[in-house]
Amino acid sequence: MPESSDVLAVLGDGLVDPVTPVARVDDAGLTRGDGCFEGCRVLVDSHGRGSVDKLDAHLARMSRSAAALDIAFDVDAWRRLVTDAVTAWAATGQGEAAMKLLLSRGPASTGAPTGLVWITALSADYSGLRRRGLTVVTLARGVGSDAFADSPWLLGSVKTLSYAINMAAQREAARRGADDAIFVSTDGMVLESPTGSVVWAAGRTLHTTPTGATGILAGTTQQLLFHRAPSAGWQVRETLATVDDLHEADVVWIISSVRGPVDVVELDGKTRQRQPDTDAEIRRLCGF
Amino acid sequence: MPESSDVLAVLGDGLVDPVTPVARVDDAGLTRGDGCFEGCRVLVDSHGRGSVDKLDAHLARMSRSAAALDIAFDVDAWRRLVTDAVTAWAATGQGEAAMKLLLSRGPASTGAPTGLVWITALSADYSGLRRRGLTVVTLARGVGSDAFADSPWLLGSVKTLSYAINMAAQREAARRGADDAIFVSTDGMVLESPTGSVVWAAGRTLHTTPTGATGILAGTTQQLLFHRAPSAGWQVRETLATVDDLHEADVVWIISSVRGPVDVVELDGKTRQRQPDTDAEIRRLCGF
Repeated sequence: MPESSDVLAVLGDGLVDPVTPVARVDDAGLTRGDGCFEGCRVLVDSHGRGSVDKLDAHLARMSRSAAALDIAFDVDAWRRLVTDAVTAWAATGQGEAAMKLLLSRGPASTGAPTGLVWITALSADYSGLRRRGLTVVTLARGVGSDAFADSPWLLGSVKTLSYAINMAAQREAARRGADDAIFVSTDGMVLESPTGSVVWAAGRTLHTTPTGATGILAGTTQQLLFHRAPSAGWQVRETLATVDDLHEADVVWIISSVRGPVDVVELDGKTRQRQPDTDAEIRRLCGF
Repeated sequence: MPESSDVLAVLGDGLVDPVTPVARVDDAGLTRGDGCFEGCRVLVDSHGRGSVDKLDAHLARMSRSAAALDIAFDVDAWRRLVTDAVTAWAATGQGEAAMKLLLSRGPASTGAPTGLVWITALSADYSGLRRRGLTVVTLARGVGSDAFADSPWLLGSVKTLSYAINMAAQREAARRGADDAIFVSTDGMVLESPTGSVVWAAGRTLHTTPTGATGILAGTTQQLLFHRAPSAGWQVRETLATVDDLHEADVVWIISSVRGPVDVVELDGKTRQRQPDTDAEIRRLCGF
């Protein structure tokens, strides 16, 4: 269960005891994974003030997810709820944390969405992980790289609560002795990781998989990186690539909002030469 | 929220107030759609005794789903919980009902699965729907008909809580003025409906889409039908078919456990000639 030191805020109710059950048996988020979420990084400065990394980008993506799901999303109400939760977190005296924004269609009979803001301590030593790097296996995702082009009901680029396959892929990676997975389309194209974007460097060009027809999520940290990198002398490009292209890349990262960018040190059993200077540069550009 | 006349039983706790929230914010069923479920039909006989249609088949499928998700499933404990819930339902004096069995991986920090049995009155007039028949549109599912062959992490044939796409497909069908949808693979093969099996009759042969590589669910009512139909002079066959094959079939049904078999009266805008005798025969064979 959540630690009592966690912070939990409920849309419409405000701050509540974090161990209080929040979903009824007919909440579509629980029965159908019918809703969306965001995973954000909470920072606390030396003056004890809390802030959320890229909050606007997370709220914008959640607004798009909610619209695609036909679920009401009042961004101002969510911003107020987040402010209350982050202020309460900072008051606990704890530091960097993970914040989940969760919106479900709610109980079928009420039609009122369920909205939750949950802040908890980091679940792992991510700075240590960034030092060690990731061992990764590629896994088939079972979809073509253009499967989502004209089928909005497939919820491409929507960060839904229906993550059972993503979680199963992470378990499969662990079974194979790897830290994480990268999904590959039926036509052999690199897609994304179960919980992050894939970015690779070739020379002074950063590449990532295009969103849209591929159905992958638009990564908020990847987008921040691609916004900042050109001023640091990088070219940035959306590229449909094969796993061989990843093997040939200088550096491959899996990038997510809470864990940050972590370079891949082994891909499908092949050890990769690390490039500490490039990795440190990308980490700084991502704000880690 | 659930009606106070509903029955809710929690694995480990037994019967509880049906409007009590049952999932904490860190329950993987709520945050990741990480779990599985069954939808069953509860019957109450003239003596007020309750029973569950095909309970063994539902528990067997849930056991397979839980195993595929690496979630513990104690079938005897679930059978006891179901018995307590159905007895309580029958005691309310209400009749035919829908029962949902829900198993989630539970709160991340406890590792204890969440198990729920929820019984509620039928949400629609299904007998009226069976009289009217269904208008159906076909929708792309974005997967190949053999995508699940060697990729267990894609959770083919696992009835997970991650149903956001299924729900979005039903909303898309409604937007197009239809009652329901039938998913079609990228290679043009008929798969299943968002919440039911597709069965069609050609002469005295009943067909359905094969499970396995297609990733579709094994329908408990479709399996019961295919078990009983041969003694009524039907041949039964698993067939990969195109939408044109459905148009040419004598009758097409969407079959699910609570709604039962409902024949398709319009497919992608084309009206279908109904065959009341055949429909009535199949309905009887399915126990409706």
